[in-house]
Amino acid sequence: MLAGLMQNVPLTLNLIRERVADLYPNKTVTTRYPHAIHVIGYGEVLDRAGHIANFLQDIGITRGERVATLAWNSHRHLELYMAVPCMGAVLHTINARLLGPDIARLLDHADDRALFVDRSIWKTIGHEIDLPRRVRHVVVMEDEPDQMLDPPARAGTTQAHYEDMIRRHQAAFAWPVLSEDEAASLCYTSGTTGNPKGVLYSHRSTTLHTLACLFADGIAMRERDVCLPAVPMFHANAWGFPYAALMAGANLALPCRQTDPTSLVELIEAAHVTMATAVPTVWIGFLDHLRRDASALGRISSLKRLPVGGAAIGRSFIDDFTRYGIEVMHCWGMTEISPLGLTNVERSDLDDAQVRETRTAQGLPIPGCRLRIVDADGARCVTDGKMPGELQISSPWAAGAYFDRAAEEKGLHPEGSFVVDEGRVWLRTGDIATIDPHGYVRIVDRAKDLIKSGGEWISSQALELQLMNHPDVREAAVVARPDPKWQERPVICVALHEDTKELRERFQQDYGSALSEHFPKWQIPQEVVFLTELPKGKTGKIDKIALRTAMQPAQ
Amino acid sequence: MLAGLMQNVPLTLNLIRERVADLYPNKTVTTRYPHAIHVIGYGEVLDRAGHIANFLQDIGITRGERVATLAWNSHRHLELYMAVPCMGAVLHTINARLLGPDIARLLDHADDRALFVDRSIWKTIGHEIDLPRRVRHVVVMEDEPDQMLDPPARAGTTQAHYEDMIRRHQAAFAWPVLSEDEAASLCYTSGTTGNPKGVLYSHRSTTLHTLACLFADGIAMRERDVCLPAVPMFHANAWGFPYAALMAGANLALPCRQTDPTSLVELIEAAHVTMATAVPTVWIGFLDHLRRDASALGRISSLKRLPVGGAAIGRSFIDDFTRYGIEVMHCWGMTEISPLGLTNVERSDLDDAQVRETRTAQGLPIPGCRLRIVDADGARCVTDGKMPGELQISSPWAAGAYFDRAAEEKGLHPEGSFVVDEGRVWLRTGDIATIDPHGYVRIVDRAKDLIKSGGEWISSQALELQLMNHPDVREAAVVARPDPKWQERPVICVALHEDTKELRERFQQDYGSALSEHFPKWQIPQEVVFLTELPKGKTGKIDKIALRTAMQPAQ
Repeated sequence: MLAGLMQNVPLTLNLIRERVADLYPNKTVTTRYPHAIHVIGYGEVLDRAGHIANFLQDIGITRGERVATLAWNSHRHLELYMAVPCMGAVLHTINARLLGPDIARLLDHADDRALFVDRSIWKTIGHEIDLPRRVRHVVVMEDEPDQMLDPPARAGTTQAHYEDMIRRHQAAFAWPVLSEDEAASLCYTSGTTGNPKGVLYSHRSTTLHTLACLFADGIAMRERDVCLPAVPMFHANAWGFPYAALMAGANLALPCRQTDPTSLVELIEAAHVTMATAVPTVWIGFLDHLRRDASALGRISSLKRLPVGGAAIGRSFIDDFTRYGIEVMHCWGMTEISPLGLTNVERSDLDDAQVRETRTAQGLPIPGCRLRIVDADGARCVTDGKMPGELQISSPWAAGAYFDRAAEEKGLHPEGSFVVDEGRVWLRTGDIATIDPHGYVRIVDRAKDLIKSGGEWISSQALELQLMNHPDVREAAVVARPDPKWQERPVICVALHEDTKELRERFQQDYGSALSEHFPKWQIPQEVVFLTELPKGKTGKIDKIALRTAMQPAQ
Repeated sequence: MLAGLMQNVPLTLNLIRERVADLYPNKTVTTRYPHAIHVIGYGEVLDRAGHIANFLQDIGITRGERVATLAWNSHRHLELYMAVPCMGAVLHTINARLLGPDIARLLDHADDRALFVDRSIWKTIGHEIDLPRRVRHVVVMEDEPDQMLDPPARAGTTQAHYEDMIRRHQAAFAWPVLSEDEAASLCYTSGTTGNPKGVLYSHRSTTLHTLACLFADGIAMRERDVCLPAVPMFHANAWGFPYAALMAGANLALPCRQTDPTSLVELIEAAHVTMATAVPTVWIGFLDHLRRDASALGRISSLKRLPVGGAAIGRSFIDDFTRYGIEVMHCWGMTEISPLGLTNVERSDLDDAQVRETRTAQGLPIPGCRLRIVDADGARCVTDGKMPGELQISSPWAAGAYFDRAAEEKGLHPEGSFVVDEGRVWLRTGDIATIDPHGYVRIVDRAKDLIKSGGEWISSQALELQLMNHPDVREAAVVARPDPKWQERPVICVALHEDTKELRERFQQDYGSALSEHFPKWQIPQEVVFLTELPKGKTGKIDKIALRTAMQPAQ
């Protein structure tokens, strides 16, 4: 082999940091906090990232150690996005919608050494979080310096206030030259089952994913954009949009926790947002709001593009926004692919009927992503747009393994979710898809047993396990029912030991409180379907596909 | 260090090959051969690349060995762009405008093992090329199978006809899994001085450069584009546009050798070209043509964008094209940076005066490129748009060393053109530039002693060396004079031993034929300025900056 003679510049997030410092110090991030709109320049964000890096170094955080966040979308969270990976540590963004015990389990599994937490989140669920002993430092994020942790954290933990911490450390930091293969951040796909699955992004994968968000055929982030990621920054780095905005020099608008239509309209107007992204649930509510309040339309006139993902969308959804001059682009991805894998770009070689047909498909693979669909034997399926197969992905920004503590020593280890074939690792997405002759992918079914509600996953399996603990339950299954607001909601299908009115009423009355010990409120099904017996497949297992089909609205 | 757990997918040109096979087999490349317009689908291009790879394997070409081309922009050259690097060999594209002896020297320096040559090129200069012994195989590119090399190549060389070669080998080829650090192609910056400088692109650098051509803020290549690279495919991979078009799924239109206005209009019309690229010289002639022939405008209505580079452009150039509905984007690069480093993207935070001012600047660094300007001591200059300094570049697609045969063993070795500072290698561009507070780079002078004529480099030093051999010459210098058609033309500034009318006339009569032994016709100056003595600097060296300044048109 003859090696090329090009510069060995590692693909790390320091490329973004340096570019912002060189070109975009005066571009801004606007955060809509509950009490006020806050604007700060990127130059200052980088300065503050330097303060944070010095703090992390002072408390002994070393290369590769995990630093957790429990935070909404804010300028401080953005500062941590820069500071933590660029100083060589790993940013572990925890889903703030989980229950305290689940959060504690993630802190333990990731072996986090420090936790940055929004005071409002801590106030709500802090008492439920039994901090693992190795989490030695907690930093509270809020404006007022005297507002410390309430409830207090475990004794023995050092506690600091974010703005105090900034003041007590200097901005100048000797950012290290990192290897592009080093871990940059860690994101768990689900904290609600017994086995949390961590995706450990590398600097290389996140940098390449960031570049992919700049492609003209795709997200097409530009300097003149103002980008509003209304998807949480604890979900796969807010789909990579904050990093993409920094790289492109686009302004950012961050909604904190508030993604209700009124708050979004206010933020779009204040920051002149040109593109926004969130799950369809958010936009369905937004559309309703626009229909009810005509004045809102004038306030959001800067908004031109909506890359939407996280759940399927219909033609009317696209048409409604088009009518308002807002272009919807269907996207698809998952935490394991950083998360973007498909964007619905309109090919020039489609006829009108094909254009209309493909608009609701999940899209074409982004350059750098290679896809295939395979049958149960792992053989490639034909790509005729009809034959479904399991969607598998090969990409430099797709996971090759899940994070577990042992993996620190043993490196990559293909397991159930990965398959080695054709000379490479493929990620098994667990989704069933068709691919048409032009390359458009349509997700037609889910192999995985998860329900997607408002952009969050609900594990039917975890719910079923708890339901089976109920003394009256003989068999139970939880399946998705399409929902106009949340896309999907879980429904309990249950057969009781005796199908009497009395037992039915008792179950109706107490299943909710039984589940609420283990699940956050939004995960708990509101609806129960009583059956004398659940349908079974050939092997005697409950036929959840039949149940799910029964829940679909009539065509 | 904790390694990320993402897939180890190497960034090689096989990503392009696979993407084209998956998504774009029916997109096309249109070549305007002198005798006919030829159209072929990308699927067939890939098939034929498979035939070529089998041929190269059969004749014993192994990983890292160089395969040369002497060819214009054609579908066959595109097939070699895919076949040679994807099978693990290195594509060495030789400038077909060089003299035979220079070409032979490059073949020797690169240690090429095979040569693919357009029959028309060979017919013109083949007799001047003394093929090095290690070039064992010559393949003639043309349609007619019976047209073999004329003149014949050195005895002992195997000779094949391209289409025969395709027919005799099969399409199926086991493309190897390459390392992204392997060399993909080799391009020399200049063959006219004693020391040719080879840039050895890696698969990684070319793949990243290809992705960079897709950025919305920049070249923004899209699937719906039809791209006409009118810059030769032997110049830094035609600025990377063929690979970018393949990756994006854009159709290509290739002009063979013909970049005269009539030929370009014909090709633009035939292939519905949306974007075209060439040096300003080509477009200046094109503009003249449009002014003279109003009907041409209707024939090129598909053309929307002109990324232009290779020489400075003026405001009127941009305005004239804007008037025709064609957007000019100033770009800048050099062979050493693959070649794109700057694109003139209009920032949203400029006022109207700044927009007008910055339009003629060379542009902003492409994401992935980092720039600095330094003074003579290597200290960073302020970026106020006024202070000039030497432009230096750090990028994964910038050279870290020049290719020499010894480098095969010793790897990267920073030398005069490279400097290690701030923890990285910087390429010294040899250009003097300013950077304004928004980041716009303007090239203000050239440290290097080269003249750029019609997109090709002319070495003033090489001309001077030959002029000094003339018996009547006491001292001589060759400097650039701005030229409306060629951007720059070389001018001889000469002081003769005796400044008499007789000697002046003799020199005028015979310098041309003396130079024509060593230089192609287009490199020979038409203009001579006689001086009694050339101006000198403090150290007694000829002050070429003073001479060059004297050649500028009056302000």
